[in-house]
Amino acid sequence: MVSRQVRNKMEVAETIESVRAAVMAARGKGKTIGLVPTMGALHIGHISLIEAAVKKCGFVVVSIFVNPTQFGPCEDFEKYPRPFEADLDICRKAGVNLVFAPRQEQMYPGENLTWVNVEKLTEPLCGKSRPGHFRGVTTVCAKLFNIVRPDVAFFGQKDAQQAIIIKRMVADLNMPLEIDICPTIREPDGLAVSSRNQYLDKQQRQDAAYIYKSIEKCRKMVNAGKVETSELIEEMKKVLLKQPSIEIEYIGIVDPETLEAAERISGKVLVAVAVRLGPGRLIDNILIDTKK
Amino acid sequence: MVSRQVRNKMEVAETIESVRAAVMAARGKGKTIGLVPTMGALHIGHISLIEAAVKKCGFVVVSIFVNPTQFGPCEDFEKYPRPFEADLDICRKAGVNLVFAPRQEQMYPGENLTWVNVEKLTEPLCGKSRPGHFRGVTTVCAKLFNIVRPDVAFFGQKDAQQAIIIKRMVADLNMPLEIDICPTIREPDGLAVSSRNQYLDKQQRQDAAYIYKSIEKCRKMVNAGKVETSELIEEMKKVLLKQPSIEIEYIGIVDPETLEAAERISGKVLVAVAVRLGPGRLIDNILIDTKK
Repeated sequence: MVSRQVRNKMEVAETIESVRAAVMAARGKGKTIGLVPTMGALHIGHISLIEAAVKKCGFVVVSIFVNPTQFGPCEDFEKYPRPFEADLDICRKAGVNLVFAPRQEQMYPGENLTWVNVEKLTEPLCGKSRPGHFRGVTTVCAKLFNIVRPDVAFFGQKDAQQAIIIKRMVADLNMPLEIDICPTIREPDGLAVSSRNQYLDKQQRQDAAYIYKSIEKCRKMVNAGKVETSELIEEMKKVLLKQPSIEIEYIGIVDPETLEAAERISGKVLVAVAVRLGPGRLIDNILIDTKK
Repeated sequence: MVSRQVRNKMEVAETIESVRAAVMAARGKGKTIGLVPTMGALHIGHISLIEAAVKKCGFVVVSIFVNPTQFGPCEDFEKYPRPFEADLDICRKAGVNLVFAPRQEQMYPGENLTWVNVEKLTEPLCGKSRPGHFRGVTTVCAKLFNIVRPDVAFFGQKDAQQAIIIKRMVADLNMPLEIDICPTIREPDGLAVSSRNQYLDKQQRQDAAYIYKSIEKCRKMVNAGKVETSELIEEMKKVLLKQPSIEIEYIGIVDPETLEAAERISGKVLVAVAVRLGPGRLIDNILIDTKK
């Protein structure tokens, strides 16, 4: 018996016009449009987003674009991994209908003068060390939403502040789409999956697991009834500072809508950590709801 | 014989949901959607925009919303005219299909954190005396475009800088609509029609005609071969300063895409004037193309 593999006919579009034509055709067939915006270097975290999109939408678009406007001048834009063919394979296998992989000139044909900025929410946490980063993210997402016009766009909880900011942008500007935030995918030792994990050497990779361990420590203490955030943060620091290659950038226990620091834990909080580790910077977070 | 008047069945929507439902129904019938965003106090200038929309689109939406975020703290937000019933009559007669007249809570249900800002183009001319004005305009237009999702939106050449900024926003953010700029409508003496003309007393109204006369003076001089903008501006000033109630805010002869001041006229330029006159502020402009 001959096994037959049904190949998914995936389209790859480089231009805005061709994306719009493909999406319009799908919409004409009554399909719901899902968008997973990525910078490529796809991993199991992205695959989980694509799977959520495939489950929910009849036509799934993955955009692959390393967006220059969200990198700072000293950040890793140039060396950010771009394994394009491998990314296409992953998309094909995951059941993606259309990959939008524009060149930079397609997304930014001239000087970009228009910026979408979300005030306040972009200032604390990652906003402090990455000025302009979130403005680049919201602007390119606004562009992608206007190009693809999806019904749903999928983002990961891993980038919690980004998710909160994008949801706020969509609400404030009445963008006609739903934002779906999918759970963080972790390695067996708890490290949140990230394209930047591949920058780590062996020691750094071992130390990196303690980012999540510090967060778990916090969760356990909260479960045991601790509510003073200063005490929780102190204990998280201890976990992280034991690891030789980790330099703490921030530990935040904040309101998950306003991102304002919480003094005591009550109801929902976001526990978020950022560290410098070797050549890069890693972040992680969890949501805790003490009322649940 | 009984004359029968066909009444245009115009819908008035106060909520975003009802606008979206009405627009979706029209789109389902294959209609092209046109949007004329206004702050109400409709006059023949607005009517000309509505007429252009009716000519081009099968379903015409007029939004009436005095947008607080585009008024400065010392500007005329409170006293801006709001003749709502008269506005509805004008829309009905002009063949509008849907008026979107949201309350403030509908457009800004909480604190608005998200702003669309167009850099550079918002700084000169009116941007100098009205900081934040254009940011309010672009933000509310982005919201209206996302609510109505028109194929075409209509604006007046009267507000030249606004038109240029909105076109740039639409291009930079890949907004899926066309921007149609319609000619300025003038009173018999040349004064550009504006909702703010009604603030003028008799003397001020007479003086106001000299705004356009100064612009016409410029056009005549250009036609006669004058190209030095400093000389042109000097002559325009003379025309305006003879009028007792006029105080010049700016006279600009600028590139109509970048809004950068032109030293000599060559090709296309925008000639723009703003004056303080009595209780308010009036603006006017023309485009000149010496290569035509």
